[in-house]
Order: sequence, then C-alpha cells, then structure tokens
Amino acid sequence: MTRIKCTLAYDGSNFYGFQIQPDKRTVAGELEQALKKIHKGESIRIQGSGRTDTGVHAEGQVIHFDSKLSLGADNWKKALNALLPDDIFIKAAEIVSEDFHARFNAKMKEYHYYVRTSPERDVFSRNYAYHVPEQLNLTKMQDACAYLKGTHDFTTFSSVKATVQGSRVRTLYTVTCEEHPNGFRFVFIGDGFLYNMVRILVSFLLDVGRGKWQPEETLELLAAKDRTRVGKTIGPEGLYLVRVVYE
Amino acid sequence: MTRIKCTLAYDGSNFYGFQIQPDKRTVAGELEQALKKIHKGESIRIQGSGRTDTGVHAEGQVIHFDSKLSLGADNWKKALNALLPDDIFIKAAEIVSEDFHARFNAKMKEYHYYVRTSPERDVFSRNYAYHVPEQLNLTKMQDACAYLKGTHDFTTFSSVKATVQGSRVRTLYTVTCEEHPNGFRFVFIGDGFLYNMVRILVSFLLDVGRGKWQPEETLELLAAKDRTRVGKTIGPEGLYLVRVVYE
Repeated sequence: MTRIKCTLAYDGSNFYGFQIQPDKRTVAGELEQALKKIHKGESIRIQGSGRTDTGVHAEGQVIHFDSKLSLGADNWKKALNALLPDDIFIKAAEIVSEDFHARFNAKMKEYHYYVRTSPERDVFSRNYAYHVPEQLNLTKMQDACAYLKGTHDFTTFSSVKATVQGSRVRTLYTVTCEEHPNGFRFVFIGDGFLYNMVRILVSFLLDVGRGKWQPEETLELLAAKDRTRVGKTIGPEGLYLVRVVYE
Repeated sequence: MTRIKCTLAYDGSNFYGFQIQPDKRTVAGELEQALKKIHKGESIRIQGSGRTDTGVHAEGQVIHFDSKLSLGADNWKKALNALLPDDIFIKAAEIVSEDFHARFNAKMKEYHYYVRTSPERDVFSRNYAYHVPEQLNLTKMQDACAYLKGTHDFTTFSSVKATVQGSRVRTLYTVTCEEHPNGFRFVFIGDGFLYNMVRILVSFLLDVGRGKWQPEETLELLAAKDRTRVGKTIGPEGLYLVRVVYE
C-alpha cells in the first residue's frame, strides 16, 4: 500500500461542504468517486485535514488516501484531475510515508476571509466574498486583530454546536486585516480552529469596523467565554482554507 | 401606460441564456416572473437590447417594459431587486418615453472578453474567464485588433447559423487587447454584432497570439467571407455585455 497526499482547490459554491453525505454533492464524495474509477470499482476512503462547510472554498485543502496502485505522484495528479469535476482541482500530489495523516499531523492552518464593501450587491462576487453595504473603519479592525492574536480560550468566538473534547484554547499566530480591491481581506493562521470560529471572528471584527465594539473590548469578550455576547455567524462565501502546514 | 428602461447585471453561469425558453431558467424568464408578481399575476413582456447565450454575462444589459403602475424609477429598481434571484441585479431604472425601444434604438454595444493564461485550470475563474494554457504574444494580438477596427463584412467571423437579413457589414469603433491580472482583456465597441461574432473574433485573436496567424492576414480573412477559414467559437464564460448605448 502507498499513502498519497494531495493538495487541492475547490469552489465551494455548489457543494454541500467537504464531508461525505448521502445523496448530496460533496467534495469528499466527488474525490472518492474519482478514486473508485481509478481503482476499477474498489471503494477508497479519503481523509481530509478537516471539514469545510457548505459554500466554503479551498485553495489548499489537504487529503490523504491509501492505494495498492503504484502510480507516480504526477500521474496521480493527472488521473484525478481528468476525472474530477471542474470545481475541484488537485494542485499537487505526493507519495508520503504511512505515518502521514492529513488531519492528525496538521500543525497550522491558514484561512482567508474576503469582504466586499459597497452600497449595492454584486452578482459576480456573491459566492466569493461577504457583502457589507456600509463603510468600515480599517484601523479599528486592525487594532482588534492585534488583541485576538496569541493564545486564548475562543469559546466566545466559536459555535455552541462545536463538540470539542478538551479545551477551546487555540493559538492564532497571525490575525490581520488589510484593504483589498473593493473591500478587505482578513488572514488567520493558527494551530487549530473551532467550529465556525473564523466566521464568528470576522463577524465581530466587522462590528468593530462599524463602531459597535471598541477594539479594546476584545479581551473582555474573550474572558467572558460566552458565545451570546457577539454577533451572528456570517456567511461561508467569503471563507477560504488556504493552507495546511505539516511538520 | 409607462415605459420603463432598466440596466442590469447578471452572472450568466446558471442561466440558459437571456431569451425566454419553456422549462429553462433564463434571465428574461426571471425578470418576467418578478414583474408578474409586482403586477399581481398579470403577465408583462420585456424586451432586451439583444440576446445573450448560455453562460454569457452582463454588466450592462438593457431592457424595457410597459406598465400601468405608476411607480417612481427608484421604486422600480427596489421592487425588482427585492424579487429577483441573487444572480440578477437591476443597476438602474428610468422612466422613458414610449418611443424608446431597448433593441431598435441601440446605437452601440460594448463587450469585454476575459482570457486567463496559466498552465493549469483554476476552479474560481472557470465560469468567468476563458482558460488558455499557453503563453500569448500581446503585440501580435494588438496588431490584429487594429486590422479589425473599422467597417468590414464580418461573415468570416460570425456563426453560419446567424440569420441576418441584409448585410453582415458592421463597424467596430474600438478593438483592443490589454494585459489583465493573470491574462488579457479584449474590448469591442461596435454598432452591432453578428451571432457569435465576439467569441469567434477572440478565438482568432488568440490564434494570432499563438503564432498560428500573422496580424496582417486579418484583411485577407475578412475579404474571404468564409467562416470555415478561422477556428472554433470559444466558450461563453469570458464574455460580458458591458454597455448598450442609445442616442
């Protein structure tokens, strides 16, 4: 058996998320269907670095799977891309050792979140950036980003539905907000992310940009460990899993 | 009766083109459905400046319709946008005189065509730019654009399916090619366009960029009036109807 690691991009718009679901079009479902064809009908299970929700995109999701076929890395890439639909693309394939695990060996993940600010909606970016009609204060959002950086209990900023064994303490190495054509780009690099964490963090940062919160209130909100203190989870359309880093 | 002119954008990816078709999701179909709701069940016919094919986008399509309702221009815009799906957006509504006609009064149209050049396909631009894996020569494409500008019989560069009464002579006021992030943008402004004309022109210009044709061969091809001399009609995904100009 050989273990293969793949780095892939997908446009999440037309998927019910990453994870296999019966009778739903999912990223993992399409990958396993392509692998089944390559293996002449034999089912192959894939393991992703983590799930992404309906509508969330990836520029650098990572998966692994095992195969008894002996194809070279580049042939794996070609064979999969030939069979996959045009909203999934394998950017790289690698033969890895059998102790590589896409989920358990992940050390860091990087997410980007794109916000488009404009009074009116835009048909072309509706699936690719979150639309905010009002103007936002960049400096205040950047100040709040600085408070979020570091090691904190992120209970306030994660879904109550998150079923986490153990602590909700995570370390964010990078939290930034910068201007981007027609809006803003938020960057998060961390050792792990709780369920809906990026979408709730950006929701809060946008409220800071609107003046609803002051940046210095971030620490108090973190300390409260109370999801109900901050706003709703915003849409998946602005969210991209950009990179998964391994040892 | 009041005549209303609307300027609209749509993402053509999920439409079977502009024109009404039974049991197909079309732009005109969605517009007429929204108008029917506003008119409490009464059917309202819309007239577009022209059709766009499946997958072709618009940033500035123009339509008109007649209504016995007396709404102000801005209320027409609001009412329609509230009812339309998120891949159509009314950018402007105007009350116009009864002799305005979206199709017959159009004096000029502007189309853009986006090409993405990169060895690999990209999941995010698959519906929004035409993918060319090879490198293209910008100067040669620009030289060929200069030959296309002006008044010519465009039979060579239009679909044989085009059912045109009268001549295939059209005037292109602007034909340009410029670098654009990750590729090129072609701009065409003309007094009228034959069926598939922009997609066949860009197909030819890309072949010039590949070195298959020399720019100076453009005039000979125009003179040949023979569709079979130039390459296939390329995809709709790169094509945008940007502007319709009236007197």
